[in-house]
Amino acid sequence: MQVVMANAQGNTKVQETIIGLEKAGLERWYHGDPSGFIELYASDIVYFDPFIEKRVDGLETLTKMYEAIRGQVKADRYELIDPLVQVTEQMAVLTFNLTSCLGDHVQKWNSTEVFRLEPNGSWKIIQSHWSLTQPELK
Amino acid sequence: MQVVMANAQGNTKVQETIIGLEKAGLERWYHGDPSGFIELYASDIVYFDPFIEKRVDGLETLTKMYEAIRGQVKADRYELIDPLVQVTEQMAVLTFNLTSCLGDHVQKWNSTEVFRLEPNGSWKIIQSHWSLTQPELK
Repeated sequence: MQVVMANAQGNTKVQETIIGLEKAGLERWYHGDPSGFIELYASDIVYFDPFIEKRVDGLETLTKMYEAIRGQVKADRYELIDPLVQVTEQMAVLTFNLTSCLGDHVQKWNSTEVFRLEPNGSWKIIQSHWSLTQPELK
Repeated sequence: MQVVMANAQGNTKVQETIIGLEKAGLERWYHGDPSGFIELYASDIVYFDPFIEKRVDGLETLTKMYEAIRGQVKADRYELIDPLVQVTEQMAVLTFNLTSCLGDHVQKWNSTEVFRLEPNGSWKIIQSHWSLTQPELK
């Protein structure tokens, strides 16, 4: 019973840590600063977003993409909806919906961020998948 | 060195297992049978696809959605592109692109499937995220 409780408490702490890391990354992202996420990514990060035909592999390629849009991504406000973290010892899977607004323009996102516990004790994102909810079909 | 080799071999085996499970699920899926995936999902599965406004939580809800389209999903052919599996002891993250064709209609997908090693030794999907590449923006 004590072990179960200890695990539950440990999981809650991990869940709070993960959500905190994501929120910090988003806060910088929507002020035009991609460095928050770049610092959160592991070297073997894989990445999907709706504007790219194919999975992006590796921090080097992704950093170049992010540097190309530095200063350009802004939001007046955004809302993280129902973040949920599924935890094992070495990985944590964060999923949420996100609504971002800039003027009259609203974007609705699905997001999955997979974090891995690195040997130095820090959590790093190894998989990031962003997609738009109910996009038009081609 | 031997430990590293043993780990590498272990990871390769897990990677093959995970890709094999996904391919078996897809093969049934594109013949109209959602049961392959339903059997692969853990009870706490979370799920995103482009046609739903919000994350779907839990096997019960997702099963109802899948049963509603039983027999309706077909493809003449499909191709799994560059599947990659990132492994820790209890989780494995599978990412890939997928092209499916039915007649002249082609769909291009991004996919992330997170598998968790369950206490009985089987790998179950706890997170599934499907999105269309380069969808039209609203």
